[in-house]
Amino acid sequence: MIRVGILGASGYMGGEALRVLLRHPEAKVEWATSRTEQKAEMIHRNLYGAGIEFIKQEKTTPVDVVFAALPGGHIMKEAPALLEKGTRVIDLGSDFRLKNVEKWGEVYGKEHASPSLVAEAVYGIPELHRQTMRDTRVVANPGCFSSAAILGLAPLLKNRMVDHHKLVVDGLSGTAGAGAETDTSVHHPEIGNNIVSYNVVGHRHTHEMEQELGYVAGESVSIHFTSHYVPITRGILAVCHGFLNSPASREELLDVFRDFYRDEYFVRIYDLPKDPDAAWQHRPYPWVNAVSGTNFCHIGLDVDEERGRVVVFSVLDSVGKGGALAGIQNMNLLFGLEEKSGLDFFGLHPY
Amino acid sequence: MIRVGILGASGYMGGEALRVLLRHPEAKVEWATSRTEQKAEMIHRNLYGAGIEFIKQEKTTPVDVVFAALPGGHIMKEAPALLEKGTRVIDLGSDFRLKNVEKWGEVYGKEHASPSLVAEAVYGIPELHRQTMRDTRVVANPGCFSSAAILGLAPLLKNRMVDHHKLVVDGLSGTAGAGAETDTSVHHPEIGNNIVSYNVVGHRHTHEMEQELGYVAGESVSIHFTSHYVPITRGILAVCHGFLNSPASREELLDVFRDFYRDEYFVRIYDLPKDPDAAWQHRPYPWVNAVSGTNFCHIGLDVDEERGRVVVFSVLDSVGKGGALAGIQNMNLLFGLEEKSGLDFFGLHPY
Amino acid sequence: MIRVGILGASGYMGGEALRVLLRHPEAKVEWATSRTEQKAEMIHRNLYGAGIEFIKQEKTTPVDVVFAALPGGHIMKEAPALLEKGTRVIDLGSDFRLKNVEKWGEVYGKEHASPSLVAEAVYGIPELHRQTMRDTRVVANPGCFSSAAILGLAPLLKNRMVDHHKLVVDGLSGTAGAGAETDTSVHHPEIGNNIVSYNVVGHRHTHEMEQELGYVAGESVSIHFTSHYVPITRGILAVCHGFLNSPASREELLDVFRDFYRDEYFVRIYDLPKDPDAAWQHRPYPWVNAVSGTNFCHIGLDVDEERGRVVVFSVLDSVGKGGALAGIQNMNLLFGLEEKSGLDFFGLHPY
Amino acid sequence: MIRVGILGASGYMGGEALRVLLRHPEAKVEWATSRTEQKAEMIHRNLYGAGIEFIKQEKTTPVDVVFAALPGGHIMKEAPALLEKGTRVIDLGSDFRLKNVEKWGEVYGKEHASPSLVAEAVYGIPELHRQTMRDTRVVANPGCFSSAAILGLAPLLKNRMVDHHKLVVDGLSGTAGAGAETDTSVHHPEIGNNIVSYNVVGHRHTHEMEQELGYVAGESVSIHFTSHYVPITRGILAVCHGFLNSPASREELLDVFRDFYRDEYFVRIYDLPKDPDAAWQHRPYPWVNAVSGTNFCHIGLDVDEERGRVVVFSVLDSVGKGGALAGIQNMNLLFGLEEKSGLDFFGLHPY
Repeated sequence: MIRVGILGASGYMGGEALRVLLRHPEAKVEWATSRTEQKAEMIHRNLYGAGIEFIKQEKTTPVDVVFAALPGGHIMKEAPALLEKGTRVIDLGSDFRLKNVEKWGEVYGKEHASPSLVAEAVYGIPELHRQTMRDTRVVANPGCFSSAAILGLAPLLKNRMVDHHKLVVDGLSGTAGAGAETDTSVHHPEIGNNIVSYNVVGHRHTHEMEQELGYVAGESVSIHFTSHYVPITRGILAVCHGFLNSPASREELLDVFRDFYRDEYFVRIYDLPKDPDAAWQHRPYPWVNAVSGTNFCHIGLDVDEERGRVVVFSVLDSVGKGGALAGIQNMNLLFGLEEKSGLDFFGLHPY
Repeated sequence: MIRVGILGASGYMGGEALRVLLRHPEAKVEWATSRTEQKAEMIHRNLYGAGIEFIKQEKTTPVDVVFAALPGGHIMKEAPALLEKGTRVIDLGSDFRLKNVEKWGEVYGKEHASPSLVAEAVYGIPELHRQTMRDTRVVANPGCFSSAAILGLAPLLKNRMVDHHKLVVDGLSGTAGAGAETDTSVHHPEIGNNIVSYNVVGHRHTHEMEQELGYVAGESVSIHFTSHYVPITRGILAVCHGFLNSPASREELLDVFRDFYRDEYFVRIYDLPKDPDAAWQHRPYPWVNAVSGTNFCHIGLDVDEERGRVVVFSVLDSVGKGGALAGIQNMNLLFGLEEKSGLDFFGLHPY
Repeated sequence: MIRVGILGASGYMGGEALRVLLRHPEAKVEWATSRTEQKAEMIHRNLYGAGIEFIKQEKTTPVDVVFAALPGGHIMKEAPALLEKGTRVIDLGSDFRLKNVEKWGEVYGKEHASPSLVAEAVYGIPELHRQTMRDTRVVANPGCFSSAAILGLAPLLKNRMVDHHKLVVDGLSGTAGAGAETDTSVHHPEIGNNIVSYNVVGHRHTHEMEQELGYVAGESVSIHFTSHYVPITRGILAVCHGFLNSPASREELLDVFRDFYRDEYFVRIYDLPKDPDAAWQHRPYPWVNAVSGTNFCHIGLDVDEERGRVVVFSVLDSVGKGGALAGIQNMNLLFGLEEKSGLDFFGLHPY
Repeated sequence: MIRVGILGASGYMGGEALRVLLRHPEAKVEWATSRTEQKAEMIHRNLYGAGIEFIKQEKTTPVDVVFAALPGGHIMKEAPALLEKGTRVIDLGSDFRLKNVEKWGEVYGKEHASPSLVAEAVYGIPELHRQTMRDTRVVANPGCFSSAAILGLAPLLKNRMVDHHKLVVDGLSGTAGAGAETDTSVHHPEIGNNIVSYNVVGHRHTHEMEQELGYVAGESVSIHFTSHYVPITRGILAVCHGFLNSPASREELLDVFRDFYRDEYFVRIYDLPKDPDAAWQHRPYPWVNAVSGTNFCHIGLDVDEERGRVVVFSVLDSVGKGGALAGIQNMNLLFGLEEKSGLDFFGLHPY
């Protein structure tokens, strides 16, 4: 059994890691920390009766791997000591995501404490970095929007099918994306029947998208990204618009996506036929509620042949494939387990 | 492996049975039926990629147990032939719930086709009928509100602590309770920011509650039940009010409940301390979203000592512990498996 | 024009008073206060462009009437000085609601600063106190749940039709009832798909209900009240259960209600026929979204003749007929205006 | 008093026209039609007690103006007879929106019955066509998304500030946009916690946007439009992305917008300062719930100076400024009334 620790388990991200790791057949949660010592179920009522007590970070014991769900800037300082003890680190936060340390400093407003680890860290999308990830000690788990947009756009950029400087992405997020701390913009009376646009230019995830998609494209790309909260609790839809370099049909592009993700279990191409006469359920675009609570990403698309635009729909759960569960997939990789170990369950219908 | 068939898998109830049985370690879904043959994922997008094809009922093959999620009146006709072939029947519908066949006829507006099976059927709450259930061939799975109210009130009636003719129950249901067929009262523009009271007197589940709680109490009881849809997708909260026969404190009543459900895995008494100065999460009443998608029932309570009232909160998922998942628990019992086999997972936070 | 001031206009209650008073044909808002001076539209985006600036309380000028939407305990201290200057006071808070000053002290945890004004204050339900209200200087506007339950139960108690010590009320509230301050129990990720029970025994509004309904009944009554937040933004449904003293039909009870509210414009008896074969819209129970943003209260009911129970549904908006708009109705009365002046508009469909 | 008739008042669009016209100081609703004769309040519970009876179209009497909220293809046949009797027509549907009759035929799948009226009809955005509208007999009220996108992009195109062939618009709609007929994609269990993308390429409103914005730009434009339902009941947010022809700051572009809409009452530029340190309410982007139930359109924007993109946020209510209420504004214009007559009320907070 892999011995696991969770740093910062009282938030939504750490709580989701805890939920799934408690039932992982090959891992054992040794401890989970929070600022105040208390029963996990005081915060995560879904775990009522599970008997988990949060401890303070000072009391942690050695483990094989740590999931870090801490506020920005902490794990970059603590990782070196952990690695020294032989503990691998999966950072669910943003400390190791940007390879360019100066850019990181600008974006996050502080100097990086462990630049050498940035170089070593692998950006945690196994669909792009599986080989290098197997041997790393530090995984930089992606931002939730980044995961959705990168998975949704990678096949197009790999195949140079779209204008790579005019990619427009509207990211729609459930309010869990705002975290467990209360804020008026996700206060129910304000957002219960509303849409709240935020970080409409300059969202930090933009840099991750550009880094990773630039890597895929083999040249620099520009992502024009805007984010919005909608009144759903979990999940993300990234609506990705690209201008086609040359005409292509929906079916041709679906082929490109099916090919790109041919051997991937967790990324599914939503390729139902488009039948205007069929009932609602034949609308061939993915639904975010189908992947909530799971490690799946569903990707669908359509093409405006008249105007030369492709629109890709990429849905995932911000704490699932866009967060903690992708982290568990990465852990499985790091430790040579089957990639879907502990993660092979379905979402709910209805959700 | 137990061979399982699901009759009527395109609705929410049958779909939930399918979802969980597909990952049950000791059962195998041989087939699932719907009126039209199609991929399951056309209806249940959560199962995208699972490769399930619905077949027509005519094409079914022999199995060890059938889950029936059919419109009322079908399985009572089909059960005898199934039993004859050695197939056990777990009815997720209402055909076998009322022991009084005449009353059943009044309530459901038709004559019962298999009165002798009604006598044989065991009402599917293992917490009350575990012993007889082990040997039955037919399980009458309870109505969703019935499960919530019966589990919430049984300890009080068993111990004769409340006026058994003045029990008031307000049942709040997510819209999944209305089923997959569209209806204006659960059309999103109508209910998205609304509460829709329905079956406010004479709800059919009332008779189940009175039957089972009368059995527990050892005398006839009257349940004053009213149901309402609130704009959540899944889950039920039964708010059960009783007038205490003699003064009792919250802590004394929690003892009664803890004692009654001492050995139950899936019924949990929500007995956190009541601390007016504590933060929100210490509010010691169960939340319905904590049990969505699970087979758990959380029960909490409080007492108005000044006015002699107890209020019990019983939450469960209408297709979980109030439906298909309780049916799987019952299947486990029928076949001598561990009761929680295939069902031992947590809900989500947030949901 | 009546000169009006609003104390505490940055909350939902004061903001609603402001919204409607800005378009009142016979009143003029002279000022509205908040703790920080700022444009009203920074808080109330619905007023964007209206040009209202909140001022600090120190800068207020004399007006004819003040609406007080302040935290508990403030206006009881400030009212005497206002009255001395000839300003009438409509308290949208709880300072003057309970006639029993000692009880008030117990319930609100402090000593009352102006007991003599408590005696003078009129409880602000014009349907019960129209005559005395015309001449008062202080109106104690009711709590939102109190308004709903009192209006829903008064006809039954007036006519001694129900067991007046066994009245059970479940109050379902939109999250606006929690106020504008953030709190985890109305944080969208927690409540967006949930029901949160709170103040399940001992809710402060219970005492108002018992006071006013005791006055109507001519004897003491007991209200067994429990409150819950459901994920709607505005509005309240009070589900009021009573045990009938003698058999009565739905139609007979509707007669009692129609008679009681015969001349009332803002209280409407929802008496559509009950037709089991009719389409959804014929379900003859009121919907809370139909009265959101208005001063209407819709009341419907049904009877379980077999078990002798009546259930009354009373819907209103917590800041409408259950709050600020009822306050404006009261202002109209105080100043001899037509009661519906400025208030005669419909709700929205859909809401 | 202007005598008004409403054709098709049982839907959401016609119902909203009815709600506001019933309180219009200079108009009188002579009749409102629906397929079945019934009380309006059976459908529109907000009008409970208003005493409106829907009649069949055969029984209508002459009026000064008709609001047509009919299924596509009806009013184009009936308009000539109405005009002959001196009745003006405000079509809330799509029959007269596209000037190119052949294109209309392709888009709507039928031949146009009154091509000459198409030429005469004025596209109902007074901010663009106020002068010609005053003298027309037929108003083609815009589609809801069209209104939002056209108002949001017109200032940029008028001033040739963006690449007019690469305009990307994501339209987020409340479910009222789907109409009153039930459909699985807006069935509450399906969409209550979900986002449903639809008409993702080839949405009919695209043609209106291109027609009107082409007129504003003085050259052909391409709109890349995709629509989505989010689980709010009313309202639309059009997120409009444009690539700037030359660098410009947020403040410079706000100037352009303020200038363009300088004299407009119902279009408001949301130009609060952008202050990263300020509290949530300072986020200077419009919220759709602030304009629900009103005739206001709020427009805000931001600029990604590094990447040369402007993003415009345009919010309105699909049956408000994007539908029936804009129709009433147009009626006011046609009859020489003050443009805001009957429409000068605020939205709600919270909504």
